[in-house]
Amino acid sequence: MTIHRFVPTVWYNTLGSHKPALTVASGDTVVTETVDAAGVDKDGVHRVAPPNPMNGPIFVEGAEPGDALRVSIDAMRPIRPTGWTRSVLAATVVDPASLRDLPRSEVVTWAIDINAQTVRLETPVKGLEHLVLPLEPMIGCFGVAPALRQAISTATSGEHGGNMDYRRFGPGTTVWFPVAAPGALFHVGDCHAVQGDGEIVGTGVETCFEVTLTLTVEKRRPLVWPRAETADDVIAIGNARPLDQALQHATTEMLNWLGSDYGLDRTAASHLMGQVVRYDVGNVFDPAYTVACRMPKKWLPPRE
Amino acid sequence: MTIHRFVPTVWYNTLGSHKPALTVASGDTVVTETVDAAGVDKDGVHRVAPPNPMNGPIFVEGAEPGDALRVSIDAMRPIRPTGWTRSVLAATVVDPASLRDLPRSEVVTWAIDINAQTVRLETPVKGLEHLVLPLEPMIGCFGVAPALRQAISTATSGEHGGNMDYRRFGPGTTVWFPVAAPGALFHVGDCHAVQGDGEIVGTGVETCFEVTLTLTVEKRRPLVWPRAETADDVIAIGNARPLDQALQHATTEMLNWLGSDYGLDRTAASHLMGQVVRYDVGNVFDPAYTVACRMPKKWLPPRE
Amino acid sequence: MTIHRFVPTVWYNTLGSHKPALTVASGDTVVTETVDAAGVDKDGVHRVAPPNPMNGPIFVEGAEPGDALRVSIDAMRPIRPTGWTRSVLAATVVDPASLRDLPRSEVVTWAIDINAQTVRLETPVKGLEHLVLPLEPMIGCFGVAPALRQAISTATSGEHGGNMDYRRFGPGTTVWFPVAAPGALFHVGDCHAVQGDGEIVGTGVETCFEVTLTLTVEKRRPLVWPRAETADDVIAIGNARPLDQALQHATTEMLNWLGSDYGLDRTAASHLMGQVVRYDVGNVFDPAYTVACRMPKKWLPPRE
Amino acid sequence: MTIHRFVPTVWYNTLGSHKPALTVASGDTVVTETVDAAGVDKDGVHRVAPPNPMNGPIFVEGAEPGDALRVSIDAMRPIRPTGWTRSVLAATVVDPASLRDLPRSEVVTWAIDINAQTVRLETPVKGLEHLVLPLEPMIGCFGVAPALRQAISTATSGEHGGNMDYRRFGPGTTVWFPVAAPGALFHVGDCHAVQGDGEIVGTGVETCFEVTLTLTVEKRRPLVWPRAETADDVIAIGNARPLDQALQHATTEMLNWLGSDYGLDRTAASHLMGQVVRYDVGNVFDPAYTVACRMPKKWLPPRE
Repeated sequence: MTIHRFVPTVWYNTLGSHKPALTVASGDTVVTETVDAAGVDKDGVHRVAPPNPMNGPIFVEGAEPGDALRVSIDAMRPIRPTGWTRSVLAATVVDPASLRDLPRSEVVTWAIDINAQTVRLETPVKGLEHLVLPLEPMIGCFGVAPALRQAISTATSGEHGGNMDYRRFGPGTTVWFPVAAPGALFHVGDCHAVQGDGEIVGTGVETCFEVTLTLTVEKRRPLVWPRAETADDVIAIGNARPLDQALQHATTEMLNWLGSDYGLDRTAASHLMGQVVRYDVGNVFDPAYTVACRMPKKWLPPRE
Repeated sequence: MTIHRFVPTVWYNTLGSHKPALTVASGDTVVTETVDAAGVDKDGVHRVAPPNPMNGPIFVEGAEPGDALRVSIDAMRPIRPTGWTRSVLAATVVDPASLRDLPRSEVVTWAIDINAQTVRLETPVKGLEHLVLPLEPMIGCFGVAPALRQAISTATSGEHGGNMDYRRFGPGTTVWFPVAAPGALFHVGDCHAVQGDGEIVGTGVETCFEVTLTLTVEKRRPLVWPRAETADDVIAIGNARPLDQALQHATTEMLNWLGSDYGLDRTAASHLMGQVVRYDVGNVFDPAYTVACRMPKKWLPPRE
Repeated sequence: MTIHRFVPTVWYNTLGSHKPALTVASGDTVVTETVDAAGVDKDGVHRVAPPNPMNGPIFVEGAEPGDALRVSIDAMRPIRPTGWTRSVLAATVVDPASLRDLPRSEVVTWAIDINAQTVRLETPVKGLEHLVLPLEPMIGCFGVAPALRQAISTATSGEHGGNMDYRRFGPGTTVWFPVAAPGALFHVGDCHAVQGDGEIVGTGVETCFEVTLTLTVEKRRPLVWPRAETADDVIAIGNARPLDQALQHATTEMLNWLGSDYGLDRTAASHLMGQVVRYDVGNVFDPAYTVACRMPKKWLPPRE
Repeated sequence: MTIHRFVPTVWYNTLGSHKPALTVASGDTVVTETVDAAGVDKDGVHRVAPPNPMNGPIFVEGAEPGDALRVSIDAMRPIRPTGWTRSVLAATVVDPASLRDLPRSEVVTWAIDINAQTVRLETPVKGLEHLVLPLEPMIGCFGVAPALRQAISTATSGEHGGNMDYRRFGPGTTVWFPVAAPGALFHVGDCHAVQGDGEIVGTGVETCFEVTLTLTVEKRRPLVWPRAETADDVIAIGNARPLDQALQHATTEMLNWLGSDYGLDRTAASHLMGQVVRYDVGNVFDPAYTVACRMPKKWLPPRE
């Protein structure tokens, strides 16, 4: 196993079949520093245009369509003492009739205390003077090249992953993406210091991280949608609009997963999901929304 | 404060301005036994037609439109050793193209061990032989008479509450409904022994409970949507289709709540919600879906 | 056949199982004057609170659940020289991000020239000085009592009809509603002098009409959704949100209709609908939206 | 003005910033033969994989982001005596609960009589023996390279156009696309001999055409969504899911158009649209749906 320290010189605003910036063997680890969603690096230098510039793509040897790319999020280390958010709820998450009553959204700076592992508004806001949030790092946008040699904006998401903004995509989580192009062509960027469900102000606390990832090819593992595993849960992702359709994708992916890996036929899987499933909401701000169908591992039968 | 033991003799399949079955003072407690969603009682006797027959309505003295009815769920005691579920995921929660691959849904019995406080399939299903779930009682359908003297089916939900199927509506939770008719006219029924998010097989474990509720009028408290509070969270509810709209209602209600009760202007509330909000999914099976916008109390400023 | 001249003294803001205001035999004709959506009559007198007060209900002898009520719209005669509209597009029909740029909506008066059969803004607006529209009368809200003894607001719609705001519901059109309560309990009101698709300012030109309707029971004709027939088309209606679901309801109703009445199996009906169907959009302003699935009669096989 | 006879040798399954296959001057005319949606040419030879292979891209000199590309559909001549459709309604257009009752969809051949300008099922289907439809040619999928150097599947649509499947995109219609890449990079393919609204069996009558188009750059004409003009109407397009959002995009685009080109402020435009607008439904089968907001030209003030 090799550890690659990957320093990008170009970034992409799409996930696509771009020229690989790095080639690794299956099982290798990559350490790389990301710029923020606006393309600003850890030194405050504006390196590239938004939205969500991606490091990559990384060609993983042996990955072919029909395989899965397993991405272990080994570590995320914050590398800038500031992050930023938008200041007002997005137009997509409040009743249309109430939109006029919202102030204009502005960019606001948050202080990140790397030693204390906390995040707070740089300039106090009335009523939130004492708000100090724990750092909860997560990757907002990552994934593989989509099928059909598409190149899809990092402002949205799909079967290939993309801008899902799901807070459980943090250190310790393993994610699988469906490989649709030779080498998988992995992209990563847009990391957040903390974020609520839905990314409902249109941002998390946007900042720069050093991300450590291990990329492994799992042959002939035909997922349709991204999947993940944490210490406690297995998770299937759906990306679409409206939320109803994202939920359908995630639920169908979980149903298939419980069948292929846990030996549950459709009735058994329905019984289990019906009484213990949990849904989480990723992005409800971008063109495609994200729903996670989450199953606590304690209720699963042994993997086959 | 009086405790009323309420034994219904008629049930309703709508929440509406029906003739009150019981009149109570604000602050009184009501103890009542519910039939299950199909209208079967604790003795297995079919008492009334589905869907979701309601005990009530209960007229709460002093409640007027513009007030809120606070409902404390003091206790829920299971009173039948069996419950039932549907056996297959609902057509609304999987990809349309996968529907043909699902078996027909059937009614399946679950055993409820009242002493052990557990729930399990009566007839074991392959792969789930060891599945024993903790009892997690919740009220599927409750609320007040809707505005305009409407009578709305207990198969759906709205500003008045109704069939929300949200698993945090259990013992220890306090719920507020917007009063839209004199006396509020509270209805309750359709309790579940346990249920996953979304009620995605179209049922929880449907059974009968003795429910203990305290009903209190809060004058001139103009909510639009139901609200709730648990030990850890405050929660705003939205009911609509698609899920996107339910989420908008819930988010807007939380925004207004943080303003009126916690002194957060729209920008401060946006900052807080943006980085710490949680969304839960209630029913995604009925004509209107349910989303809960949940805010951990530990992040809230003191109530004004 | 009898002609009833029906003068209401009470109006309802719901379609429901209210006490009948008139009882007629199947095949009888009713002539009645409607108030406008705000409850103002032909003399400018405010008679009843909004929304959309209904004349009725009319009990049609012999109608039972499982039957259809056929409503022939024989004539609509305008009886007030003014109507009114809202002045700005509704929040539901423009991009959320553009809502701030819209002025506040106001009520605006239109002049109705009953002799010339035209409609125009009473106070000219820059750029529309010469806009004179032909009178195109239509019924905005009508239908029967819903199932389960529900009473549903005239601000929305469902299987029972209600506030569909579909411009082809005018003179010469025949409409069928699914009977869900004894006597059908027909309601009518909310007529428009003219209206574009979608009722996108939240109103048509709201005014008063004398409406002539013939009400006939068709026994054992189990529709799910309203159906209609004009000189050129047969039409199936779906009411729901989002529009996608309304379209699904309407399309499924047409599919079933082509099977039961025209002998087309599901494949033949699919071929025909696939290449010649037309969709119209009713209300996209209210809680439930309306889609019409329209089939030109010239392509239909003979009725069986 | 030059007429180019363009014979493609490669086709694309995405609209994107691919290497131009042809460069033309603004105002030039292009005549080209398309393959069908499955990649089969006029001689029945399978030339390229689906979905919807595109001829192009055509680089139009002088086109820059911020301009519009005007595409006049001068002529469409059918060049194959057969087309094909799917045989059963798509899963997206019927109620989920009715999907089980549909047979499996198959591919069915239609005969195209080029002299008679008619289309009929090659093998008669019971009840449709006499169905002979007039040829109504239309372009299913066309548009320009999307922004951000995206490459987007021809199975879907967006601001750049794409797979809209709108039946008014036929001979005599002029369409404008927002230029997002130098040279606009126009693509075209997927033509239909006839198609109902919604493309609800997932296809029109898919066949090959010789298409004659005139491509003209209109400088500094910043549309967001495609626009069109026919003999009778001006039309704004929205592409999204759910249909509600597509309708919002189309309506907002029309609102802006009436302001910039016809001098109607937001109130005047609202009055006009509110009472005379028409909505048409394009594709309701693909990932993004299409709605057309259509305004009869007879009601428009003079163009400024």
